[in-house]
Amino acid sequence: MPSDWNKRVTDLLTGVIPPLVTPFDANGDVHTDDLRSLCGSLADGGVHGLFALGSSGEVGFLSDAMRDTALATIVEASQGLPVLAGCIDTSATRVLDHARRAADIGAGYAIVTAPFYAKTCTADIEAHFRWIAERSPLPVVAYDIPVAVHSKLDSDMLVRLALDGVIAAVKDSSGDQGAMRRLIRLNKAAGSPLRVFTGTEVVVDANLLMGVDGVVPGLGNVAPAGYVQLYDAARRGDWATAVTWQDRLEEFFDIVYADPDLVGPAQAIGGFKAAMTRRGVLSSWRTCAPQRPLSTEAVAKINELTDSYVTWEAGQLGRPATAHIETKEF
Amino acid sequence: MPSDWNKRVTDLLTGVIPPLVTPFDANGDVHTDDLRSLCGSLADGGVHGLFALGSSGEVGFLSDAMRDTALATIVEASQGLPVLAGCIDTSATRVLDHARRAADIGAGYAIVTAPFYAKTCTADIEAHFRWIAERSPLPVVAYDIPVAVHSKLDSDMLVRLALDGVIAAVKDSSGDQGAMRRLIRLNKAAGSPLRVFTGTEVVVDANLLMGVDGVVPGLGNVAPAGYVQLYDAARRGDWATAVTWQDRLEEFFDIVYADPDLVGPAQAIGGFKAAMTRRGVLSSWRTCAPQRPLSTEAVAKINELTDSYVTWEAGQLGRPATAHIETKEF
Amino acid sequence: MPSDWNKRVTDLLTGVIPPLVTPFDANGDVHTDDLRSLCGSLADGGVHGLFALGSSGEVGFLSDAMRDTALATIVEASQGLPVLAGCIDTSATRVLDHARRAADIGAGYAIVTAPFYAKTCTADIEAHFRWIAERSPLPVVAYDIPVAVHSKLDSDMLVRLALDGVIAAVKDSSGDQGAMRRLIRLNKAAGSPLRVFTGTEVVVDANLLMGVDGVVPGLGNVAPAGYVQLYDAARRGDWATAVTWQDRLEEFFDIVYADPDLVGPAQAIGGFKAAMTRRGVLSSWRTCAPQRPLSTEAVAKINELTDSYVTWEAGQLGRPATAHIETKEF
Amino acid sequence: MPSDWNKRVTDLLTGVIPPLVTPFDANGDVHTDDLRSLCGSLADGGVHGLFALGSSGEVGFLSDAMRDTALATIVEASQGLPVLAGCIDTSATRVLDHARRAADIGAGYAIVTAPFYAKTCTADIEAHFRWIAERSPLPVVAYDIPVAVHSKLDSDMLVRLALDGVIAAVKDSSGDQGAMRRLIRLNKAAGSPLRVFTGTEVVVDANLLMGVDGVVPGLGNVAPAGYVQLYDAARRGDWATAVTWQDRLEEFFDIVYADPDLVGPAQAIGGFKAAMTRRGVLSSWRTCAPQRPLSTEAVAKINELTDSYVTWEAGQLGRPATAHIETKEF
Repeated sequence: MPSDWNKRVTDLLTGVIPPLVTPFDANGDVHTDDLRSLCGSLADGGVHGLFALGSSGEVGFLSDAMRDTALATIVEASQGLPVLAGCIDTSATRVLDHARRAADIGAGYAIVTAPFYAKTCTADIEAHFRWIAERSPLPVVAYDIPVAVHSKLDSDMLVRLALDGVIAAVKDSSGDQGAMRRLIRLNKAAGSPLRVFTGTEVVVDANLLMGVDGVVPGLGNVAPAGYVQLYDAARRGDWATAVTWQDRLEEFFDIVYADPDLVGPAQAIGGFKAAMTRRGVLSSWRTCAPQRPLSTEAVAKINELTDSYVTWEAGQLGRPATAHIETKEF
Repeated sequence: MPSDWNKRVTDLLTGVIPPLVTPFDANGDVHTDDLRSLCGSLADGGVHGLFALGSSGEVGFLSDAMRDTALATIVEASQGLPVLAGCIDTSATRVLDHARRAADIGAGYAIVTAPFYAKTCTADIEAHFRWIAERSPLPVVAYDIPVAVHSKLDSDMLVRLALDGVIAAVKDSSGDQGAMRRLIRLNKAAGSPLRVFTGTEVVVDANLLMGVDGVVPGLGNVAPAGYVQLYDAARRGDWATAVTWQDRLEEFFDIVYADPDLVGPAQAIGGFKAAMTRRGVLSSWRTCAPQRPLSTEAVAKINELTDSYVTWEAGQLGRPATAHIETKEF
Repeated sequence: MPSDWNKRVTDLLTGVIPPLVTPFDANGDVHTDDLRSLCGSLADGGVHGLFALGSSGEVGFLSDAMRDTALATIVEASQGLPVLAGCIDTSATRVLDHARRAADIGAGYAIVTAPFYAKTCTADIEAHFRWIAERSPLPVVAYDIPVAVHSKLDSDMLVRLALDGVIAAVKDSSGDQGAMRRLIRLNKAAGSPLRVFTGTEVVVDANLLMGVDGVVPGLGNVAPAGYVQLYDAARRGDWATAVTWQDRLEEFFDIVYADPDLVGPAQAIGGFKAAMTRRGVLSSWRTCAPQRPLSTEAVAKINELTDSYVTWEAGQLGRPATAHIETKEF
Repeated sequence: MPSDWNKRVTDLLTGVIPPLVTPFDANGDVHTDDLRSLCGSLADGGVHGLFALGSSGEVGFLSDAMRDTALATIVEASQGLPVLAGCIDTSATRVLDHARRAADIGAGYAIVTAPFYAKTCTADIEAHFRWIAERSPLPVVAYDIPVAVHSKLDSDMLVRLALDGVIAAVKDSSGDQGAMRRLIRLNKAAGSPLRVFTGTEVVVDANLLMGVDGVVPGLGNVAPAGYVQLYDAARRGDWATAVTWQDRLEEFFDIVYADPDLVGPAQAIGGFKAAMTRRGVLSSWRTCAPQRPLSTEAVAKINELTDSYVTWEAGQLGRPATAHIETKEF
């Protein structure tokens, strides 16, 4: 791998980097117009990077063809923002195939989780990252997501891998704040070879107080400007303002619980998409087949939560609230 | 799907159907000669079908190219035995891509787990199977493996899917004997639309007593004749003989614990492969990269356990024990 | 401890040893009349021992005073059957207090789980059993119940403890049939220092085929004669009859799922108690406060399942079916 | 219960309330002199309350007699600080017995977890709290500790219970920062009927930023003044100072990982106790029998970490560092 990878990453990756949702059309294909609209909305919102094909992108549900279409669309519409590509799969050999395709398409970084499906352990996970990084055409960003892969990335291992140039950054979606605090300390003591991102939507202020380099909030699809305001306030030490934005965004986050009959992406990503439809960014809240759709009641509730947030946000930003989009069945 | 699928499956699938390991050569590629040797050994042992690309086949570690090579080799060397192909992936869209390739290669059945990586529930799992079966060129065999996918296939759902022609059989590797007993009862009450297989190595006698149609034991790679003897004894009601074989095979199964520093396939499938190397069926016990290899001590222990079993088996079968193969480092 | 403990246990403990439910009266106190009735019913059914204060006895819900009342009633009504007393608590010091009270009350054996609440490991569990056994006035029976204590008793450790005279028997409610099969083998190889019991209701035939010494089925409260028939058939090698009883008892076991709005003992033990009320053994199906009661619909369903089983059982035994008891709200 | 409970709690409970460890003497009894020394050290450190018999107090390991001795000693040495008493047990009936004894001994509040051992659900947990509160002589503080009891207290339920006067506060040791952020919002929207405490040691600054009322850090046994400095800085909005203290305390927290061969309280509480012995507060680092002791290497490592922290703390506080106590084997 190029010797300047870590430096490139250190220079580039920071700030608010939302994990993009993947919109779908009536045929179940990737809705490229909607995806371009999303990229434009995020760039307008002031975000600092685009995280493609993550859990918020329903990556586990997408065929390789769908992944390629989504990634190519995002790269093309990225307006110069760094694009990180989820290379999410069960093993090193499979991840590498995704990383190679992502490089061909033009992504800048390969996002890699621990192996899953088979039982694993820290020694195996370390071997997995080293094997991939030796062969990957892209710098590797580790993705710590125990809820999906059922193992946790060890903090000591992450720093060791970073010192050896194997990984350049980590996105921590573990929810284990103690482990992350310890990782931040170990990384600093090692000379900060690693960029540390958090995947949370609702404790971003707290994570920035602790010292993370950036945030990857799924809700940032819906409220990019809000997270940028939160991030900027924290960066200038204005914690009262940061908390105000976080508190309001946390309340808005109830959109992911609107349909109690659904679980996983059908519920949470469906919630994001319905809110984005209400804001006029997407044309529908479909999730990838064969997931079940949000109920009419859930969409009504999401619309209400969205209208309320949009009005508040406009007030904070001193802008007129955008007209609400009339959503209808599709 | 063809209207006679269930019937075809009911006619064909029964007995001992080992989940084949995938051998590797020094370059990390699928060792097709070894795989042909394995198929021959299994046919000689009297097995009733070949289960390709399951957990014992390290399916999660294999790239699509590796999967295709392994499956094509097995189909070609199957000597008329039914070939079931693991179409293991995170979502319906991805599973379908595997099923289509498996059909092109010539497999007879598509093995499908619950979706994984994303959180799921029984309603989503049911939608997953229905979506796949509507589009699959091959009859679907459900694979219940909570240790890998972190959800359990509901017994009532399985019978419902079978009655609707969505699935034709289930391989139960859940280890939940109570649920399986209940499934066997519900299936019988529904007119037996489902073939029920167990994935256990060590309670096959008990499972046959309970009424399963067939068994898919990983250890059957190493001891096909032993499992066929066990199966035949149980089928004729000779439980004392069935228990004798099972007890001895259970003792032999300690090969999967020989290396305490490994976990998962590196440990268990490595154990199978080392024993098969000792028996002369494979030329090495490599597991798929980047898994760590068995220690020298572990291989020595496996050799000892294998020699002991082989001698006992030969005595039972009234045959001369095969000479032990001298294994060496590779 | 007395040097002949293991021998005493080996001599005495075998067969069907139901884990007794604890009946309650309208004030929420232990219903001693009902408990005596239950003991009489079990003795009439031909069981070989009484397992008091286990999970089926709602032991976790009972105050010390309730535990003592229940145990004293059972000891008094035991008609010479061995009485095992659950000494279920979070730690060695607390278990020992229960064992001492149980000895004073007249129980014959102390049932002990792994420690729980605090995180533990095999070395700590082993220290726990050794510390208790050194001080306990009663022989110790290990109770392996991961669903409640969230750790598994290691098979090698169990045999080691038995060889050292620390434990005399184990009740395995882990549901891990592979581990139990291995335990049975290791125990036999060590000279059978351990009696092995299973806690299952629905694979008793299979467990007896594997070689367990006895069975502790919660459903044995409701159908003692059925389990004795099953046990006797297995002991004489009449597996067809054993399977016939097990299959019918497994179907009857659906009483534990009758109320889908409940979980745990409220659902399962409530189900046993409602069936026992229907059979006239208990006067109510109350579970320990503050658990929620079975719905009217659930009780109706349980009554139906009970009537059906009772009729079948009477036919098998060549006896007239007992009149069904009219159950009413209380 | 008295109608002014919530108000009393609201008035009193705030700030730093360490969960006291329970020291032991060479006979395995509660070391009352050491416990008095600890209470004095905490009062000198400026803490705002004493949390007795929590997980840090090894409550699960203590017999009732040990619990009573420890609690009586703490109440007597509390110097007017509020005393909260852990009433940790498997069920409502058992918890109530502890709460009654705690009231007799003079504690001010009863700490209550969800029921454990038996499977439970939110409806059962709610019934559990309501049943206890109706009968408890002490106000109830809910304790959310999934790692020990294997269920999570639902945020909506907690606010509902607080509005009904059932609970007055909650200590959240779940580590689920998202759920806690949501709880803080729901509680505020309901008029703040609930005091919210966090059990973390290492993200106290972040939790105070989010709006918790107080903190219950186990490491506060060892560094009470440090947590009081952190708390005071946060209360006056001096986040830079709060972070400085938290970062240093987080580094010190590595004492809980010093012995890799231990788990649970033997490791973590042993670590606290060894550090307190080094600081001269306790005379030994024994944990409750039959837990295994820290290794000599681990104690040496803890001493080093302690000396380093003590020196740093003294510098921050402008005080001379206390002489290090020479620890020796016991």
